[in-house]
Amino acid sequence: MTATLVLLRHGESTWNAENLFTGWVDVPLSEKGENEARRGGELLRDTGLLPDVVHTSLLRRAISTANIALDVADRHWIPVRRDWRLNERHYGALQGKNKKQTLDAYGEEQFMLWRRSYDTPPPEIETGSEYSQDADPRYADLGADVPRTECLKDVVARLLPYWESAIVPDLRAGRTVLVAAHGNSLRALVKHLDGISDSDIAGLNIPTGIPLRYDLDEDFRPTVPGGTYLDPEAAASAAAAVANQGR
Amino acid sequence: MTATLVLLRHGESTWNAENLFTGWVDVPLSEKGENEARRGGELLRDTGLLPDVVHTSLLRRAISTANIALDVADRHWIPVRRDWRLNERHYGALQGKNKKQTLDAYGEEQFMLWRRSYDTPPPEIETGSEYSQDADPRYADLGADVPRTECLKDVVARLLPYWESAIVPDLRAGRTVLVAAHGNSLRALVKHLDGISDSDIAGLNIPTGIPLRYDLDEDFRPTVPGGTYLDPEAAASAAAAVANQGR
Repeated sequence: MTATLVLLRHGESTWNAENLFTGWVDVPLSEKGENEARRGGELLRDTGLLPDVVHTSLLRRAISTANIALDVADRHWIPVRRDWRLNERHYGALQGKNKKQTLDAYGEEQFMLWRRSYDTPPPEIETGSEYSQDADPRYADLGADVPRTECLKDVVARLLPYWESAIVPDLRAGRTVLVAAHGNSLRALVKHLDGISDSDIAGLNIPTGIPLRYDLDEDFRPTVPGGTYLDPEAAASAAAAVANQGR
Repeated sequence: MTATLVLLRHGESTWNAENLFTGWVDVPLSEKGENEARRGGELLRDTGLLPDVVHTSLLRRAISTANIALDVADRHWIPVRRDWRLNERHYGALQGKNKKQTLDAYGEEQFMLWRRSYDTPPPEIETGSEYSQDADPRYADLGADVPRTECLKDVVARLLPYWESAIVPDLRAGRTVLVAAHGNSLRALVKHLDGISDSDIAGLNIPTGIPLRYDLDEDFRPTVPGGTYLDPEAAASAAAAVANQGR
């Protein structure tokens, strides 16, 4: 028995375009991001990789990506599951801040530590900040447990219970599962699937809008490490672009 | 205890605009229909009637209406449930046919019987017709029970088990429930809620894109018969327009 899992990172949001730290702030896709989602749906449709169920975060940019891609792939009608545990990493006090200004204010070392360290979260967001989630009804059930900041290690810790309790049961039932989520929640999932070390995971970048297919064995381990992108050339050139950033 | 139910009929589809019988054929919203959905979302948002869960049919025009309206109302993140039992009435052999040509071919009496009789379905759709649902994967679980035609009585019969087993439990849990569906599946639900007779239900038309609010008592009966439209003036003028059709 193999199970099929498809990961899809949302496309560009309006805040990506404006170079702001986003985290749990619920911004929409940009027009470019909507086109990326459409392209993701075309790849699903044209390769015949048709999801039976979709899991999304509670954030609009992942939800819209799933809605658009599934509509294009004629799978808009499949069951939907949503959970905060698939949300992007909470970026703490950096949410809403410009990345360039943050880099200039704190310097390269601190900046990269917040962005890429496995276990150092940014400072906590202040209570009552317009970019905190204190009053957001979608997290009301979490009470005082709503994150105020997260490092990737925190994301792994809150993601894995959902993987075990919600995604694995769908896979076990033989369903092809689409997970539409974010750079860091998908990084956390891939870390678990591929057994990537705490230090190596920072170097892994999942490109936006290109479905990443994992075929999993009976222990839910990848039969092909790293999975397979539905458009390998586009994924490779996106990875090269990331590697060249800041050079 | 009262429970709050909100009904939303999808806006114009491309086939409404082309005057074709649609039924279970899965056509998209027209641009006008998307605007109607947006307006429905604005009414939810501006009146503070915020759904905690949404139920849709398996048809794109209802799913897109829910997606658009909930996004506008900032409730895109709520749980989603979908079921074929909320689908539009199956229009049998008339699916894909032009309404005017059907009227000319069969005459006014037969035409109105198919459209408005409670218990006379149109002829069954042929196996293998491009407008049948024989090969549609979303109905695979139904096997040979996929409808080949339906009258409104059939819709009531297949809708009520879903009302009892899926919608009522959400209402009982205190959730504000949005049902995004179709002219005839919502007519069937309203018939049940308001106790409308088999002969009177033909005269009831639910306008598109205007949320209809029902407050229900502990027996899930309306405290205000007929419910309340969030835009009563627009609903009244839509009803007047329907009454004047064909005059």
